[in-house]
Amino acid sequence: MGRVVVALGGNALQRAGDHGTWPEQVAQMRATATALAALVAEGHELIVTHGNGPQVGTLLRQNELAEHELPRRPMDVLGAETQGQIGYLVEQELTAALVRARVPRTVLSIVSRTVVSARDRAFAHPSKPVGRYYTEAEARALRKREGWQMVYDGARGGWRRVVPSPTPRRWIEGDGLQKLLARDWGAHVVPVVTGGGGVPVVERGRGVFEGVEAVIDKDRTAAIVATTLQADTLVILTDVPAAAIGFRKPWERWLGEVSASEMQVYLERKEFADGSMGPKVEAALSFLRSGGRRAIITDPPSLGRAMRNETGTRISPG
Amino acid sequence: MGRVVVALGGNALQRAGDHGTWPEQVAQMRATATALAALVAEGHELIVTHGNGPQVGTLLRQNELAEHELPRRPMDVLGAETQGQIGYLVEQELTAALVRARVPRTVLSIVSRTVVSARDRAFAHPSKPVGRYYTEAEARALRKREGWQMVYDGARGGWRRVVPSPTPRRWIEGDGLQKLLARDWGAHVVPVVTGGGGVPVVERGRGVFEGVEAVIDKDRTAAIVATTLQADTLVILTDVPAAAIGFRKPWERWLGEVSASEMQVYLERKEFADGSMGPKVEAALSFLRSGGRRAIITDPPSLGRAMRNETGTRISPG
Repeated sequence: MGRVVVALGGNALQRAGDHGTWPEQVAQMRATATALAALVAEGHELIVTHGNGPQVGTLLRQNELAEHELPRRPMDVLGAETQGQIGYLVEQELTAALVRARVPRTVLSIVSRTVVSARDRAFAHPSKPVGRYYTEAEARALRKREGWQMVYDGARGGWRRVVPSPTPRRWIEGDGLQKLLARDWGAHVVPVVTGGGGVPVVERGRGVFEGVEAVIDKDRTAAIVATTLQADTLVILTDVPAAAIGFRKPWERWLGEVSASEMQVYLERKEFADGSMGPKVEAALSFLRSGGRRAIITDPPSLGRAMRNETGTRISPG
Repeated sequence: MGRVVVALGGNALQRAGDHGTWPEQVAQMRATATALAALVAEGHELIVTHGNGPQVGTLLRQNELAEHELPRRPMDVLGAETQGQIGYLVEQELTAALVRARVPRTVLSIVSRTVVSARDRAFAHPSKPVGRYYTEAEARALRKREGWQMVYDGARGGWRRVVPSPTPRRWIEGDGLQKLLARDWGAHVVPVVTGGGGVPVVERGRGVFEGVEAVIDKDRTAAIVATTLQADTLVILTDVPAAAIGFRKPWERWLGEVSASEMQVYLERKEFADGSMGPKVEAALSFLRSGGRRAIITDPPSLGRAMRNETGTRISPG
């Protein structure tokens, strides 16, 4: 038993081939919620965090399509909106799943901000593509008018906006949250926090935070959440049942029980793809370095068995 | 001193004449946050709730303008998104104002759902106009295609969608929230809850809630919040410094200290406008009937003096 932070990836909310409708998201979340409730029924204290890639993309595009009539909102604000949207979805589906599993809890989605450093190198090198594809002429105009950085995507033959992906430093609401909660809160509540990695803000003075147009890796923030709330286990849910070395090559090998130092070696050998499995492994290792006891990488259907050490990649300290 | 629920009206976030830009909302919230922080500095425990009318209107319209490319999300989901948006804004500005006032607190915005009855008469009589104006032909098409109820607005010469405004019954997250918080939470945290009156849901079974396309009067939900969290005072902030009888007539009289039974008489005499001061007075009286000690109706600049019984409409039980 123990306290577990579970980070839900994009596919926990939206499947490949989905059209992004609300009923699709509800159906997908319902399946994931059943797996999460089973953890609680087994005696674990649960904290949930989630990504927001497709959802923030939709809001960006809607803002753009309506721009002739309504002012656009900045990206930090759209990130906060996805926390409301997905936080509501998790409350709805997880409340029901917990009652079905006979372990009713209050599911509390908390609008969360994550501090990044204004001097983070990422601000000088925006790398994360967001929003739609543009023609070269449009890209040039946007660069000039909005100050956006644009990159050419050869595979799709179009230009996209890129934004910085700075390293998360601190989850603002977490500092207070753990102090104010009653000692046995895990028996009563499931917090849902730092959706989309948290709204990125930089600190401009004591208590003064300014939102920035950036994206944060949700798994890196999940590691901070797990450390802040002193969780035993960090689970990163994705669309494969485990991490692998030689992924999709003839010598592919799925990783089960593995030590942090072994994972570190694979990471340095570039065994894990940038922007995909790589950041997940990094987040897992950062949690273990900060005192975490176990990090798991798996998919929603394997969650229960992975927690019982029967499947998934289980990384231990040392 | 004591525990105070403050309900922020539309004008606490957006002034008449604003264009709905984000910097405008930030500026307006900053002013309101200073008034709220002063209450905390005077020793009160603060809970904040807020409206979302202009914000949900913007999201509805953006969904509509982008519909040819992206599926529309239902109104309950858009309401949740405004809780994220405004919850983030309150966290940003109130955190800073509390530090300036030397009473730092963790501001926690919680995505909130409000239960309404599926048998509420409002569902048979949708009355609240939302979104843009349509031509008669468009209105006919929408009635057929979407099943929307439409009404003609003679003053503006156009048709609008109307949705039900059912009575809020219960704030789902509130039941758990007060149990799980440590006894002295008011010294550490300012919760921001039930934005836009809460996302309206109907109960379909134990723990099973279904979102509905409706709007909830945020002040009526604020009364439920104040009762649930056992607040002493409910403050309803609006754009006038007090309630008046004979409002804007030659015999206009502003109300100061007044009893609930006196207000009930004015209410029955239709002294207060429907959809404006009327529901605020009703919310205030409902809080007092449930054991509240004081309800105040005033504007943000008068908040501090109203709390010291120097201005505003102060309604006492009995």
